[in-house]
Amino acid sequence: MLVPAPVQDNAASRAARRWRQTHERAIVGEFIDLLKIPNISGNHGDVRRNAEAIAALMQAHGISARLISADDADPIVVGEVPTPGASRTIVFYAHYDGQPLDPKEWATPPFTPTLRNKMMEEGGQVIPLPPAGASLDPESRLYARSSSDDKAPIVAMLAALDALRDARMSLASNIKFVFEGEEERGSPDLVRLLSGNKPSFSGDVWLMCDGPVHQTRRPLIYFGARDVVTFDVTVYGPNSELHSGHYGNWAPNPALLLSQLLTSMKDSRGRVVVPGFYDEITPLGATERAALGAAPNIDRELMREFWLGSTEGAPATLTDLVTQPSLNIRGLASARVGAQESNVIPASATAAIDIRLVKGMDPSRTLDRVIDHIRNQGYFVVSREPDANIRQSHARVAFVERKHVGLGAVRTPMDLPISQEVIRTVNSIRGPAVTLPNMGGSLPLAEIEQSLGSRTIVIPMANHDNHQHSANENLRIQNLWDGIELMAALMAM
Amino acid sequence: MLVPAPVQDNAASRAARRWRQTHERAIVGEFIDLLKIPNISGNHGDVRRNAEAIAALMQAHGISARLISADDADPIVVGEVPTPGASRTIVFYAHYDGQPLDPKEWATPPFTPTLRNKMMEEGGQVIPLPPAGASLDPESRLYARSSSDDKAPIVAMLAALDALRDARMSLASNIKFVFEGEEERGSPDLVRLLSGNKPSFSGDVWLMCDGPVHQTRRPLIYFGARDVVTFDVTVYGPNSELHSGHYGNWAPNPALLLSQLLTSMKDSRGRVVVPGFYDEITPLGATERAALGAAPNIDRELMREFWLGSTEGAPATLTDLVTQPSLNIRGLASARVGAQESNVIPASATAAIDIRLVKGMDPSRTLDRVIDHIRNQGYFVVSREPDANIRQSHARVAFVERKHVGLGAVRTPMDLPISQEVIRTVNSIRGPAVTLPNMGGSLPLAEIEQSLGSRTIVIPMANHDNHQHSANENLRIQNLWDGIELMAALMAM
Repeated sequence: MLVPAPVQDNAASRAARRWRQTHERAIVGEFIDLLKIPNISGNHGDVRRNAEAIAALMQAHGISARLISADDADPIVVGEVPTPGASRTIVFYAHYDGQPLDPKEWATPPFTPTLRNKMMEEGGQVIPLPPAGASLDPESRLYARSSSDDKAPIVAMLAALDALRDARMSLASNIKFVFEGEEERGSPDLVRLLSGNKPSFSGDVWLMCDGPVHQTRRPLIYFGARDVVTFDVTVYGPNSELHSGHYGNWAPNPALLLSQLLTSMKDSRGRVVVPGFYDEITPLGATERAALGAAPNIDRELMREFWLGSTEGAPATLTDLVTQPSLNIRGLASARVGAQESNVIPASATAAIDIRLVKGMDPSRTLDRVIDHIRNQGYFVVSREPDANIRQSHARVAFVERKHVGLGAVRTPMDLPISQEVIRTVNSIRGPAVTLPNMGGSLPLAEIEQSLGSRTIVIPMANHDNHQHSANENLRIQNLWDGIELMAALMAM
Repeated sequence: MLVPAPVQDNAASRAARRWRQTHERAIVGEFIDLLKIPNISGNHGDVRRNAEAIAALMQAHGISARLISADDADPIVVGEVPTPGASRTIVFYAHYDGQPLDPKEWATPPFTPTLRNKMMEEGGQVIPLPPAGASLDPESRLYARSSSDDKAPIVAMLAALDALRDARMSLASNIKFVFEGEEERGSPDLVRLLSGNKPSFSGDVWLMCDGPVHQTRRPLIYFGARDVVTFDVTVYGPNSELHSGHYGNWAPNPALLLSQLLTSMKDSRGRVVVPGFYDEITPLGATERAALGAAPNIDRELMREFWLGSTEGAPATLTDLVTQPSLNIRGLASARVGAQESNVIPASATAAIDIRLVKGMDPSRTLDRVIDHIRNQGYFVVSREPDANIRQSHARVAFVERKHVGLGAVRTPMDLPISQEVIRTVNSIRGPAVTLPNMGGSLPLAEIEQSLGSRTIVIPMANHDNHQHSANENLRIQNLWDGIELMAALMAM
């Protein structure tokens, strides 16, 4: 893929590069120590250990840091670098919790950070860390949960600040750091913590460092994110598995029922056919449409990379499709498949689903529409595990378990002065960034906007092929280096 | 449910009852020792340990027993009780291997036989075994893998033989015992072992003791079985899981594709719509249709028992429906559901399927029809895991993995003299049996008929609510007692 040549007319990013080139091993060492601390979202003890380690790390970098929490919320780590006389505050956001995982699916243990000379899919082999003071191959990759999502930005921000201080570059803005510990489970306490501690969190703009850069490896700026609603649907057969010979043809098969239900939600081209699903979308503005038009079309390359012979929304491109909402089956389970499969009619079948919403869609109303659709397929819908009486009284019963319902999608106008300043700054580092109206993924932008009135812009740094949210998550080392330069330039803007 | 009062005008079954009443604890002790030996089908070491233990047990009961095997086939245990001058040989068949299982789904470990005072679903509690010489509550249940499917008949046959000898009752036929070790994985070596050792296995009729009695608890005789074909279908998304935000709407979702494919196979009433699926079925004869008409309709009771608010083939009854073929999804898997679910587009989705065939249907041709149907849904079908090149070259790829393809279903005519004699004998024990043209489940009847020319009739003894093939498999103790009487009567006929 095309890698644009560095432009480097940005003094701060140049300073960051010089600093990094003489501190590579130390920066990666700090990163590895952080990745060793298990951080699965919702494991409160582990999450707190991460928060404390990050606060200690910030102190070691000369940033006064503290933990903000309340009741049983996982702590947010905050730090501030005040600039006397500055009238603007820029908040740098990342999160330190990670997605759940199944260690069996990992080639090396998820909390034993492991360096490979290139990505596994290209035959990457485990290599030792270079000795103290040495450099790293920029194409090598560090494998660990949260190596890309989203601990790398924390390490990059601290290295960037070191570099700016070393170069004695003065800053124009107050800088705040906010590292969240609940992002991967939908930021359930973010609004409460922000609203209850506004002075600590207030800022003109939050720069959200999360997600991957463009697949061409060009820098990327997103001016919004899709919001996410997650829920599970379970449908039922007999109250325990039955022998498929003795009862096959007679006892309803929940795996078939679930298949029929899921099939009813989308057409053969992937368009959601739940009535009203697309009704409230706010159309894109002219600047946003122009940005989309200028974005590289990399569908063919991605199809090769992912071994795809077709795409769901073709002929529309990936770039266009993520500005639309999606309904995605993120998991299916019914009885067993593989070595443990047996001749049964399963007792139940469950689909885990996520809906990605774009600006204008109301999350609760969207979920209600899906539930209405399930009812219209003949199901009696319940919000808790149904008992014998409910199951016997209705031909079909569906248990819809709401998991996460967000506050709605956010899109920051691209023509705001701060939007334009961020674009100019990023462009000055390595040439023109790809700018997009929203990322396909989700970030708690609405939580921030609604609690604080701040604007939000998303500045990713991870490689796109990082296996984010999945097994064998990794960060390409060059992306860490680029991230340090990006953070330095944005801190100094 | 209705339990018919005992008739007991059969001398052999009366002798068996007397013997059992004074040996309950010893019989159950022998059963428990056998259930303690893990027997998951295909785990060759464990399976052989079972075979050796059964052969030793037969020797202890005065039956000369030996193991018949070849190459890597799991052994068949055979034993013979010759009757001088007898012109007829009756073969008693059971199998000693068990279905695969997931121990986490079991309330008590599957190979630690555990007695409960009643079934778990009715609040059954674990109770201690009574001391030596004591009796057991006939409504208590023994929980263990293969307690019902299919080790109970082995213990019942040995106790029945003890009883007949104790009562000095003379037999009219030669008796053979055949205990198979590969039934749960489709009897892959049965034809080879039978054909290669005909003198050991030959007999006029094989009485197959497997499966449950009627749901009313009335004795049951099946004159055939459905055959079974099993296969897995896997369809593909990206080569590894992708973030559902960044790629949702664009990367094909294999869970949705699989749902659509499965939905295309059956209509909303459960009828298989794969072209030609029902074309070659041999219609039932008049005797068989009359037997079906006389069978009790217990659908309402079963629906209550299984918490069902509807059935798949309604208004047709269970009894009728199992004389038709079925296509059953026995498992579904794609990414993860529950605590480990995450926001991904899964890389693949797999359905495990079994087809039950009735007399006349060709197993291979039936599977080919399903594969043709998959092709007609736009899939390129492969018989091994597809590589990158195949997946990129086709819009949709399905990997169909054939697991088991049987020899076809068997139905022994109900009006043969041996059929009528078995019916008369069973009726003489506890009143009229339910007689059915075929069981819904599968047994290697075709393997036996085609290798030896013997007739086959199925004589089950387990309770219908035994959780066969599933977690918490159990045998109701009264069914063991009834089984001993049944075996004694059939040996003496």
